[in-house]
Amino acid sequence: MHRRHILRGSTLAAATAPLAMPALAQPQAPALRWRLTSSYPTSLDAIHGAAHVFAKTVAELTEDRFQIRVFGPGEVVPALQALDAVQAGTVEACHTTASFYTGKNPAFAFATGVPFGLNTRQQSAWMVEGGGIELLNELFRQYNAYSLPLGATGAQMGGWFRKEIRGTEDLKGLKMRIAGLGGTVLSRVGGVPQQLAGGDIYPALERGTIDAVEWLGPYDDEKLGLNKVAPYYYYPAWWEGAANTSFVANLDQWNALPKAYQAAIRTACAEATTWMVGRYDTRNPDSLRRLLASGTQLRAFPREAMEACYREALALEQELAGKSPEYRKIHEAWSKSRDDMRAWFRVAELSFDNFLAQAAARR
Amino acid sequence: MHRRHILRGSTLAAATAPLAMPALAQPQAPALRWRLTSSYPTSLDAIHGAAHVFAKTVAELTEDRFQIRVFGPGEVVPALQALDAVQAGTVEACHTTASFYTGKNPAFAFATGVPFGLNTRQQSAWMVEGGGIELLNELFRQYNAYSLPLGATGAQMGGWFRKEIRGTEDLKGLKMRIAGLGGTVLSRVGGVPQQLAGGDIYPALERGTIDAVEWLGPYDDEKLGLNKVAPYYYYPAWWEGAANTSFVANLDQWNALPKAYQAAIRTACAEATTWMVGRYDTRNPDSLRRLLASGTQLRAFPREAMEACYREALALEQELAGKSPEYRKIHEAWSKSRDDMRAWFRVAELSFDNFLAQAAARR
Repeated sequence: MHRRHILRGSTLAAATAPLAMPALAQPQAPALRWRLTSSYPTSLDAIHGAAHVFAKTVAELTEDRFQIRVFGPGEVVPALQALDAVQAGTVEACHTTASFYTGKNPAFAFATGVPFGLNTRQQSAWMVEGGGIELLNELFRQYNAYSLPLGATGAQMGGWFRKEIRGTEDLKGLKMRIAGLGGTVLSRVGGVPQQLAGGDIYPALERGTIDAVEWLGPYDDEKLGLNKVAPYYYYPAWWEGAANTSFVANLDQWNALPKAYQAAIRTACAEATTWMVGRYDTRNPDSLRRLLASGTQLRAFPREAMEACYREALALEQELAGKSPEYRKIHEAWSKSRDDMRAWFRVAELSFDNFLAQAAARR
Repeated sequence: MHRRHILRGSTLAAATAPLAMPALAQPQAPALRWRLTSSYPTSLDAIHGAAHVFAKTVAELTEDRFQIRVFGPGEVVPALQALDAVQAGTVEACHTTASFYTGKNPAFAFATGVPFGLNTRQQSAWMVEGGGIELLNELFRQYNAYSLPLGATGAQMGGWFRKEIRGTEDLKGLKMRIAGLGGTVLSRVGGVPQQLAGGDIYPALERGTIDAVEWLGPYDDEKLGLNKVAPYYYYPAWWEGAANTSFVANLDQWNALPKAYQAAIRTACAEATTWMVGRYDTRNPDSLRRLLASGTQLRAFPREAMEACYREALALEQELAGKSPEYRKIHEAWSKSRDDMRAWFRVAELSFDNFLAQAAARR
């Protein structure tokens, strides 16, 4: 059936060749197995699941010759050591958040997204057609790694707060679980960023050891049950208005791949990214509805507090550019793209979105 | 070098097999050539180029065994007959705009985007994780075809106008080149939609035979030189707040493909879609800047006129649902997704975008 249909096609090149003989002249890429360690809890089907979607696609594309096995955090490598394990060759690849590694170099943040940075589509455009992937791989190369975007979350929520935030004053002394450069910005307006492993967050917030927690968005936050221990749910996560998650491969292993396998990884990353964004975008609405029904109170961050954080974020960008040559180089290209796209998006894109948001609110 | 690197990997399955023997047990998918007709002028490197990006990737993924040759409009098939040619098997595939075919069935519009519908990310989410691709393929199946999104434009511009539009009154009698359901909505507020082939647009607008033209956005509109014959550039295209372009294959040919080739098409479509959006998003800003420097006057459609068109678009949705069972079925699922996502996007996504748009405007 298969073969007959194909043979009927008048444009089939193979129809002119002897059928019984396999195409030995074309070297077939070899069977290969990789291990990929994920930094994300296996219970989170979107952010963890993206690696499985990706690996399944790579197998489909290569007629099962290239198999990538996905491991949860801690199975082979702890969540926050994924890049180190890839660099050392302990595993061939990982699925992780590049901004976990800003302690090595703050420029890693651009692979994820930075405070008050690009939105999801702008981040994608900058990566794919604005030179972002190439610029970032100059950085990853220093860690013997090659990276591509594999997944994105959309704009995240600002998180769960035990008390209302009425202005910048209420951020002073606020103990908040928040990672990366967002935490640095918070500390500059008087907040106290905390690093907590996933399992410690719920009890710390319940007991009041911390005052606030940022995680991701309604779909994942609901699974963690954070609504049970804090009443106020703030938006937006100005520190993660977009967040890409990253595929990272050991550079030697990447370079050794047949071109077709590199293409399989590249396209499977692109498809899984679209999938993950779509999964959050279609699942978040129902989760948010359930959270609100459970008593969660939705709050926008006060404009004045956003402004204060925005000023500090811009100042931090300048400081980091003075400290890290890699950050400076990427920031220069990135900020031109940011300014260009932000100006353009105000025209057609945002006027369309805002018209319909207002129309929907009236219905 | 290649092979040595691969062999060093400790997880390599092939290392346990005799090296000299090709994997004959695994049937290698056959060499295959397809022809794809594009509905888009070859001069437009984003919307036409997406098919080339796609075809190149399919070849890479299949080690050049599956070759898809792209033809411009008119080379094999006229631009607006692409679907018919695919249905008849004249070509195996096409790259086209599904809403060109609303004359066959208005439900085709959902594969592209409908007036006052989803934005680009919502359209993607609905297609990929909201059941859109499956629902639409129930329709394409009636035309012996299988379709996937291949490309998207972002929110388009409202087009070029010889005179200012101050309200709905100014739309009455307005002769505007605008296609599809957008044209139907315009006619319901008194406008006179016109169908013109690409080459006739410029002279018709120059001579004043028509009053206005919608095409796409700054990057493509600049290439057509429309700024030379009309001073006012309106936004947004409320009829194309998002527009997917579509890959469409003959269903028999699609079903006859080896699974790995189907996966190659699927992932290459996803990657080329991301590429095309990114290309417009990174190129539109410079084009808009040049257009404004040339004297183009940017204008937002008056809110009152948008409201009038919005009411007519909602009424048209209900009418079409009453006429076409396919439209009704898709509309029911689509409008639930639309309402859900629109409500959710108002929270984190739009508050982030609007904060930064306002901050950028002040700088």
